[in-house]
Amino acid sequence: MANSFGHLFRITTWGESHGGGVGVVVDGCPPRLALTEADIQPDLDRRRPGQSNIVSARKESDIVQILSGTFEKRTLGTPICLWVKNEDARPEAYTEMAAKFRPSHADYTYQAKYGIRNWQGGGRASARETIGRVAAGAIAKKILREQFGVEVMSYVKQVQRLAASVDPETVRTAEIEANAMRCPDPEMAARMIRLVEKIRRAGDSVGGIVEGVARGVPPGWGEPVFDKLEADLAKAMLSLPAAKGFDLGSGFAGVTLTGKQHNDVFRMQLGKVITVTNRSGGVQGGISNGATIYFRVAFKPVATIMIEQETVDVDGCNTTIKARGRHDPCVLPRAVPVVEAMTALVLVDHALRHRAQCGFGNFG
Amino acid sequence: MANSFGHLFRITTWGESHGGGVGVVVDGCPPRLALTEADIQPDLDRRRPGQSNIVSARKESDIVQILSGTFEKRTLGTPICLWVKNEDARPEAYTEMAAKFRPSHADYTYQAKYGIRNWQGGGRASARETIGRVAAGAIAKKILREQFGVEVMSYVKQVQRLAASVDPETVRTAEIEANAMRCPDPEMAARMIRLVEKIRRAGDSVGGIVEGVARGVPPGWGEPVFDKLEADLAKAMLSLPAAKGFDLGSGFAGVTLTGKQHNDVFRMQLGKVITVTNRSGGVQGGISNGATIYFRVAFKPVATIMIEQETVDVDGCNTTIKARGRHDPCVLPRAVPVVEAMTALVLVDHALRHRAQCGFGNFG
Amino acid sequence: MANSFGHLFRITTWGESHGGGVGVVVDGCPPRLALTEADIQPDLDRRRPGQSNIVSARKESDIVQILSGTFEKRTLGTPICLWVKNEDARPEAYTEMAAKFRPSHADYTYQAKYGIRNWQGGGRASARETIGRVAAGAIAKKILREQFGVEVMSYVKQVQRLAASVDPETVRTAEIEANAMRCPDPEMAARMIRLVEKIRRAGDSVGGIVEGVARGVPPGWGEPVFDKLEADLAKAMLSLPAAKGFDLGSGFAGVTLTGKQHNDVFRMQLGKVITVTNRSGGVQGGISNGATIYFRVAFKPVATIMIEQETVDVDGCNTTIKARGRHDPCVLPRAVPVVEAMTALVLVDHALRHRAQCGFGNFG
Amino acid sequence: MANSFGHLFRITTWGESHGGGVGVVVDGCPPRLALTEADIQPDLDRRRPGQSNIVSARKESDIVQILSGTFEKRTLGTPICLWVKNEDARPEAYTEMAAKFRPSHADYTYQAKYGIRNWQGGGRASARETIGRVAAGAIAKKILREQFGVEVMSYVKQVQRLAASVDPETVRTAEIEANAMRCPDPEMAARMIRLVEKIRRAGDSVGGIVEGVARGVPPGWGEPVFDKLEADLAKAMLSLPAAKGFDLGSGFAGVTLTGKQHNDVFRMQLGKVITVTNRSGGVQGGISNGATIYFRVAFKPVATIMIEQETVDVDGCNTTIKARGRHDPCVLPRAVPVVEAMTALVLVDHALRHRAQCGFGNFG
Repeated sequence: MANSFGHLFRITTWGESHGGGVGVVVDGCPPRLALTEADIQPDLDRRRPGQSNIVSARKESDIVQILSGTFEKRTLGTPICLWVKNEDARPEAYTEMAAKFRPSHADYTYQAKYGIRNWQGGGRASARETIGRVAAGAIAKKILREQFGVEVMSYVKQVQRLAASVDPETVRTAEIEANAMRCPDPEMAARMIRLVEKIRRAGDSVGGIVEGVARGVPPGWGEPVFDKLEADLAKAMLSLPAAKGFDLGSGFAGVTLTGKQHNDVFRMQLGKVITVTNRSGGVQGGISNGATIYFRVAFKPVATIMIEQETVDVDGCNTTIKARGRHDPCVLPRAVPVVEAMTALVLVDHALRHRAQCGFGNFG
Repeated sequence: MANSFGHLFRITTWGESHGGGVGVVVDGCPPRLALTEADIQPDLDRRRPGQSNIVSARKESDIVQILSGTFEKRTLGTPICLWVKNEDARPEAYTEMAAKFRPSHADYTYQAKYGIRNWQGGGRASARETIGRVAAGAIAKKILREQFGVEVMSYVKQVQRLAASVDPETVRTAEIEANAMRCPDPEMAARMIRLVEKIRRAGDSVGGIVEGVARGVPPGWGEPVFDKLEADLAKAMLSLPAAKGFDLGSGFAGVTLTGKQHNDVFRMQLGKVITVTNRSGGVQGGISNGATIYFRVAFKPVATIMIEQETVDVDGCNTTIKARGRHDPCVLPRAVPVVEAMTALVLVDHALRHRAQCGFGNFG
Repeated sequence: MANSFGHLFRITTWGESHGGGVGVVVDGCPPRLALTEADIQPDLDRRRPGQSNIVSARKESDIVQILSGTFEKRTLGTPICLWVKNEDARPEAYTEMAAKFRPSHADYTYQAKYGIRNWQGGGRASARETIGRVAAGAIAKKILREQFGVEVMSYVKQVQRLAASVDPETVRTAEIEANAMRCPDPEMAARMIRLVEKIRRAGDSVGGIVEGVARGVPPGWGEPVFDKLEADLAKAMLSLPAAKGFDLGSGFAGVTLTGKQHNDVFRMQLGKVITVTNRSGGVQGGISNGATIYFRVAFKPVATIMIEQETVDVDGCNTTIKARGRHDPCVLPRAVPVVEAMTALVLVDHALRHRAQCGFGNFG
Repeated sequence: MANSFGHLFRITTWGESHGGGVGVVVDGCPPRLALTEADIQPDLDRRRPGQSNIVSARKESDIVQILSGTFEKRTLGTPICLWVKNEDARPEAYTEMAAKFRPSHADYTYQAKYGIRNWQGGGRASARETIGRVAAGAIAKKILREQFGVEVMSYVKQVQRLAASVDPETVRTAEIEANAMRCPDPEMAARMIRLVEKIRRAGDSVGGIVEGVARGVPPGWGEPVFDKLEADLAKAMLSLPAAKGFDLGSGFAGVTLTGKQHNDVFRMQLGKVITVTNRSGGVQGGISNGATIYFRVAFKPVATIMIEQETVDVDGCNTTIKARGRHDPCVLPRAVPVVEAMTALVLVDHALRHRAQCGFGNFG
């Protein structure tokens, strides 16, 4: 069950970086939704390597095929299996990895857990696994947009110490997609790009922060106690490769405020209850309050670097390793569509759950 | 299902702050574990109000009763139902809450979701709900300790801007419990206490950071992809009342490092694979690597303050509200046992899951 | 998780026959449903022993208490914990059971599985566990009736070789409750009662068949493939103590027909699609078709008999055992409300699931 | 979630009879199990049409491909995606089905539920869906055999009124596979085959009973209350296309016995607790007792017949329909490997669950 996410809109991803491919089964999609590969491919194109010179130059076209669940270009309500074949496999590039554990990768822990691992390119721990998430997320985003008027987006907020200035209430997708960094603050984006190019030349890598946003979520989504909206978002984000932190609304910075400074007071506006400020990040007690949901995800610097490092081999001897080949010096621009996908998956699942329990008419 | 957590060691909490009580059903506990109320009560005593003058003065003795699942002081392998009666109910203290939504509480979102709410003291959104978690967590901690030699603890790391200096590798429970703040840095604890007393006199509140630690976790716990150890910890922590953020290992601070600075290189030590540093926080690719697991949880300042604030009432009119009664100016000391409980629940569940899939002998 | 049933309307039962009591947590109940103990107690009264001289004479009043989940006599949408205290405990009546395994009971298998068991009266394997199911089922029946116009009932169809003649389309509750056997064929009921009285005098026991019926289920409930309506009903029924078989519609008898004889042809009637016959039992491909759902559950003769039998003791020696005390010579009349409860739990869960996935408006 | 089965050894099937293919994702398989397509294909060959002249003559080679989850011919512990391409699609053979609902098929209920259906050959409701189950079941059977010494098999017990005489304790696979009917009573098998040939010539169909057996299951598998072994088997079997009933051990026939006649008394044999008889069917209180598990599944006559029948069309008009093409006059021989697969899936899941909770060493 470790490879499934969601309850009513439930995805199960499968596949390793090398082998027959990667994919996802989406169970619980509403019927009669118009859906073809063309709804999914654009998000995969935003995720794939080779888009710009600040991400990996690997050539993966990542073409999605719908294997089941649609008929005459509409969903059937049955499981949708999406498949992206692996290509560009060069297992010989990985032979060193058969014998050595790459620092801060999952090589050692997979070996310790399973007593076996696919050492070709990361196997199941490869970021290629996120293809299935992005593909499923494209469907989730379409449902949110068409059925609920909910808009989900994300962007690069910070690279190392370079922090952009972005307003979650007004940022638009076109601004995000306007540069290779996917940072809607153009000046800072240019600086970030220069930083990444410099880091890449040094064979090193950098991390940063992606901010996620959902606008138009109605009050009432999210479940009390364990399945709070922020709890499911936190899990979704920390399940991403290289993610090390999550905070929502005021987040970690909010701990320096007092209650008086932090509270979001309510006020009536055009007949609706609104909050004057939004330090809550659109969620109170685990349930959406109608304000914009916004949160941040911290990504560590990419573990693969072109610099020699100490490590150990599978026989328990100290040795060194130095990556070769084509790697991302900064994962953030490609993480943006993945954060969006996970956000959409969490929200659609909660939309369905909310309807199931609370969609009843009056009980008199 | 929103009120359940865990897969194989699965808890379901129930109860509101006012009514018949609060409790938990623990399903999946191994049989033959010695267990009486005396194993559980001490953690509830650490959680309850009235322990010191920096937390709420409410008098709740919070006595736990085991209603099922044990026989002759041992667990049966059947569901363990734990119950704590509510007492000290003064519903008249809450009449104002019937008509008004408290800012940054869950009053409004519960009303929006369900069309009904128990306005007496927070109902299901009350921190009393965590009693069930702490009670179940006490059982989880016992299993971890007795069966796996795993030690789980947590402490106050920061209150507003006052940050303690604590080493997760060596901190001991006695140091944590040595002061009312549950901060094992005695000098900083004293300053924190003075700050909270000052804030309380102002009728205001403060937030801060709790750090959680698990030592002795063997390599191999945690599942790849969605049920990564850090993902389940993140969900567990963000499901706590007032939690706004979670990070693990280097966390948010790690984004300022380069890959070379951040990577934890491997080295052999006494025949075992260890990492020279531990920026990964004991988890790589979602799976424990044998190093100490440590993480932080950000708690916002308590929403209930003794200061008049704007709000709206249930009829949609602007109004004001001012809390009366006995509230926590700082939730952190009482959050410590709750963070511990959730940590233990996540770990026991993963210990059982790991054994289920990977406990097989050789396949030849 | 073994003690939970259902996905969206999810119950978790707890408790042993001896100890603090038995109960259930209902998670996912829609909010604002009028609910007090008076909605639940009548079904518990139908289940409890001591109702007539063909069931056990034990005195258990089985008074239900709502511990959580309601406020001002309405459901909150939060978990509803229901509790029935144990009483009339005479553990000394069970001392022989501490040392010996009762034939065709669960004593031996619990011991083999857990290495421990509550030998007082069956512990978790006691039919007292069904109290939680009946209590939760009463809520489910109320939702089905008030929100969907669905009527759930069941009755004794056969005792040993005595089979009643009942029409599932027209049978009424009053006819079922008109006699101690809960068999709506009064003549056969009288013969069944005489049979049970005779069997009781012989210290022996008998089994039989309960038929379950749901009328008014709209087309569309039930999920394809694994969670077919009949699959979930089968699981629900086979999870009952003493149940050995389940069939739906034509069931086992249908295997003697040819396809031509068995098929339910469609016809239009008053603008609706109906089937001329109903050998399908109201379900096709796992999904309700609007016709009456009806099925049968086989219950073996009660294992506890007042006749000496061979057995073994916990030390692995051959010995004999003979039950004393007050036991049911025929479990069927008391099984009737339990079958109803499980039917209602399955249906409400599927009603919510159907709405969640298929309750969307048009996708244009 | 409707398309998933199992908790720890969890399968998710996907695919329609027409479209990209059918398949399954297996999540939770233990690592390091030797596994190639050659372990799976033989069971698919037993399930596919065209094996003999008593089943459908359709030509489907049903070649399985492993898309993920193995490396160097061993399982990785990651999800195993298995895929069988669809072929021999002749959608024109199905145009009549686009407009009319076939009696006793799922056409109408899918349309009622989803407002859309793949009318080509049954879509998701086609028996082709069971390909995924059989493929996953082959892995489950291998684990049971290699790790636990458990043997799972099934055979045709009855066709219409022709009932075979078979001893579940001693029947061998070679005897089952010795004839096209998969009935290990050779004389009765010959009569069954003649009956089916006659029925086929009449354009009609017949049903019957498959008996399932598991030998070597140790005491202790199965969970009390809802996830009883027989409850999960019942759900598994009633989830099969055309299944109408399930009973275990004495089953429906057992209701005619008294408790004295029915009880399985215990006796010591070679130092082990055994039951002298096995009317319990190897399960007591939901938990295996070490005796052979055996049960029956009733399959209705195939709904597709070559005889004109009344029905209605999608516009709500009365009409008639008559099947053409190649269909099974009797589904039973092909149901045998499917029953085996589901049995194995239930057992492996419970084996893992038992180990997870009860695999602990002593608690002192």
